[in-house]
Amino acid sequence: MTQRVLTGITTTGTLHLGNYVGAIRPAIAASQEAGVESFFFMADYHALIKCDEPERIARSRLEIAATWLAAGLDTSRVTFYRQSDIPEIPELTWLLTCITSKGQMNRAHAYKAAVDANVAGGEDPDAGITMGLYSYPILMAADILIFNAHRVPVGRDQVQHIEMARDVAQRFNHQFGQGSDFFVLPEANVEEDVALLPGLDGRKMSKSYDNSIPLFEGGAKALKEAIARIVTDSRLPGEPKEPEGQALVTIYDAFATPAQRTEFRAALRGGLAWGEAKQQLFDRIEAQIGPMRARYAELMAHPERIEAVLQEGAAKARKLAGPLLAQAREAVGLRSFVAVAPLPAKGNAGKAAKHALPVVKQYREADGQFYFKLNAADGTLLLQSLGFAEGREAGQWVARLKRDGLDALADLPLAAEPAIDRPALDAALAALRDAQT
Amino acid sequence: MTQRVLTGITTTGTLHLGNYVGAIRPAIAASQEAGVESFFFMADYHALIKCDEPERIARSRLEIAATWLAAGLDTSRVTFYRQSDIPEIPELTWLLTCITSKGQMNRAHAYKAAVDANVAGGEDPDAGITMGLYSYPILMAADILIFNAHRVPVGRDQVQHIEMARDVAQRFNHQFGQGSDFFVLPEANVEEDVALLPGLDGRKMSKSYDNSIPLFEGGAKALKEAIARIVTDSRLPGEPKEPEGQALVTIYDAFATPAQRTEFRAALRGGLAWGEAKQQLFDRIEAQIGPMRARYAELMAHPERIEAVLQEGAAKARKLAGPLLAQAREAVGLRSFVAVAPLPAKGNAGKAAKHALPVVKQYREADGQFYFKLNAADGTLLLQSLGFAEGREAGQWVARLKRDGLDALADLPLAAEPAIDRPALDAALAALRDAQT
Repeated sequence: MTQRVLTGITTTGTLHLGNYVGAIRPAIAASQEAGVESFFFMADYHALIKCDEPERIARSRLEIAATWLAAGLDTSRVTFYRQSDIPEIPELTWLLTCITSKGQMNRAHAYKAAVDANVAGGEDPDAGITMGLYSYPILMAADILIFNAHRVPVGRDQVQHIEMARDVAQRFNHQFGQGSDFFVLPEANVEEDVALLPGLDGRKMSKSYDNSIPLFEGGAKALKEAIARIVTDSRLPGEPKEPEGQALVTIYDAFATPAQRTEFRAALRGGLAWGEAKQQLFDRIEAQIGPMRARYAELMAHPERIEAVLQEGAAKARKLAGPLLAQAREAVGLRSFVAVAPLPAKGNAGKAAKHALPVVKQYREADGQFYFKLNAADGTLLLQSLGFAEGREAGQWVARLKRDGLDALADLPLAAEPAIDRPALDAALAALRDAQT
Repeated sequence: MTQRVLTGITTTGTLHLGNYVGAIRPAIAASQEAGVESFFFMADYHALIKCDEPERIARSRLEIAATWLAAGLDTSRVTFYRQSDIPEIPELTWLLTCITSKGQMNRAHAYKAAVDANVAGGEDPDAGITMGLYSYPILMAADILIFNAHRVPVGRDQVQHIEMARDVAQRFNHQFGQGSDFFVLPEANVEEDVALLPGLDGRKMSKSYDNSIPLFEGGAKALKEAIARIVTDSRLPGEPKEPEGQALVTIYDAFATPAQRTEFRAALRGGLAWGEAKQQLFDRIEAQIGPMRARYAELMAHPERIEAVLQEGAAKARKLAGPLLAQAREAVGLRSFVAVAPLPAKGNAGKAAKHALPVVKQYREADGQFYFKLNAADGTLLLQSLGFAEGREAGQWVARLKRDGLDALADLPLAAEPAIDRPALDAALAALRDAQT
């Protein structure tokens, strides 16, 4: 089965080369694997927690969207959207808020760290802490569950949030799912061996160390200048140089083929000057980044094109989020008021039968599989499904049949026998659809 | 100016006569006053906090909607909707969550009471407390602010919530409103002299005292039986009776004219039997409640009619909520990516001017009033507003002009001079509109 993989993108700050190598490039590569349905979203509701400068938020999310597109994110393969374009997310957040225990939020790492800092400083434990910081794990759970994502690639510090999302999904399934797996329980994909690019001074590249190489900012000139400042040893041109352990070489590796890596090491051992080595590094990086930078500049000059891409992504995302939220609302009791079929009056059975509705039954067989069938109001079997591994799948087929009628039949896996009475089935599905609206 | 009054309706439980006299009837009467724009909403997102029985939630909100409609709520005058039909509410909730301090939620009465009970019971302070219970004052603030309600009629126990809503509105205005009054600061209307109907035993009518008279449940028969159980003194028919202090008389008063009240008291003092008095009370109540009960039964038999009324209400409400949320998103930085006019190139000023946009200016004059004006890209004054008491009003007019173009002019208060160049203004508004989309 296709695995849904969901990646949230922070929309604050400006990106450096380390972000590209450690996060953007591998995420885009992973989205091209077979059997994977990737969701990438700009986490701009989250950005509001830490940043109250509207101009910076507006600017940042534009730049970061442009960066991912310039880096080759293929929006025909993946679903790429802004979190804030999906109103189903804050709505699901509220439904989940009602079943999340406060004690669980008290244990969230980010909140606890803020409390510890306050206590250490002699302040009130909650001083300066907003409800955004405190409750964002619930928003994050909604981000994931609204698309029933199977996997969420995260750093080690984010594992707890995925566990919280699993937990709230489990609680919802238990309380409102009537035994079925309403929500998929997401799993954290911890990226143990993320390629951490060293910075100019050999430590991890990070804005806080002020040792980073810009990705697009400042153009080729800034890239060249940053590379010139990479710290090396002081061996002179012609002197043999030990490549291993040099930040410059590690950065080179991130942009080179195995053959190029071997060749570069041999040249350094053979006395290649650091200045020349830096020029080679620049050429190597520029070959990959240069064309992206041009695409980035083109996109930044036409924000309306990025807007169009994101609107398309939002529409794609909402096609999934809308029906799922509708089911969740139904499950918790936020239902439309619909006409109820009158009870059959004595001696008037014929008339009452006209009002009675066909019946859908979902059930689990001894084989552990989930099935559904559709009976006409008079009890005739109209449709019998094959078994599904997950109850949710059966439920989704039922929803699709109600929505699309016979059109959905083409894709539905069915046993060859018995033959389907299509007109009767069509009428039954129409009756169910009418009863819903 | 019209005052917006917003009333939230709890959607759990079944209503009794005390709810009708103390809440429903006065609220409906108040909604018929001149100069008042009333909003009534079924607080079903709130219902999820306390109730995890979907069937009960579904049933309750249907019954309560039917009750208010049967009691005479005039949906052509008021805006009557389900909270859960307004997705702008949970979205605004998240925006407000990001600027609400956690310390403020710690001080909320309902949460504190739950903590006190836990501590007294030797439990963890947060035992059994959900995030819904903890954070619902933020949802309540969004309920109010999304319609810029001026007044919220509440009981004394709810005053703190309105203060919290004011507080978060003030913080938003300060942080993102750029000095204007983005959100109206709502005021609590504390109903000091609510007519508290006594129950069968003379104490306040309440489900928890098991002393209530049903509103519609059980029909006229149940009403009559409940009235028969009203406690009176044991004076016999013919004996003079002191009416003051009798629960039966207080209940009678709630359904009688002043003349009828005087007459009833005189009859009791003249020896009217309690049994006969109860019959008169029943007749009096039934005259008012009977027709409503019939309407209620008719509505409950046709839930789809209630659904239609509520959908209409939701559409009316969202016409206000949508634009306000759009402005709030804009204010915090969640903006659409739009084309930016290129800078004028040398020797190419004519071409660049074509791209330049008209300019809207909002400002405050020495008279303390708020104004706006619209200049064409070349600086020509196209439109000059009169002064508004609130900055928000000016802002709303600007938004409306951008949206509706010249159509909005008809309603806009303007000085007679100077004459408006309508074609130029039309073009300018169209240019602004295009730039937004």
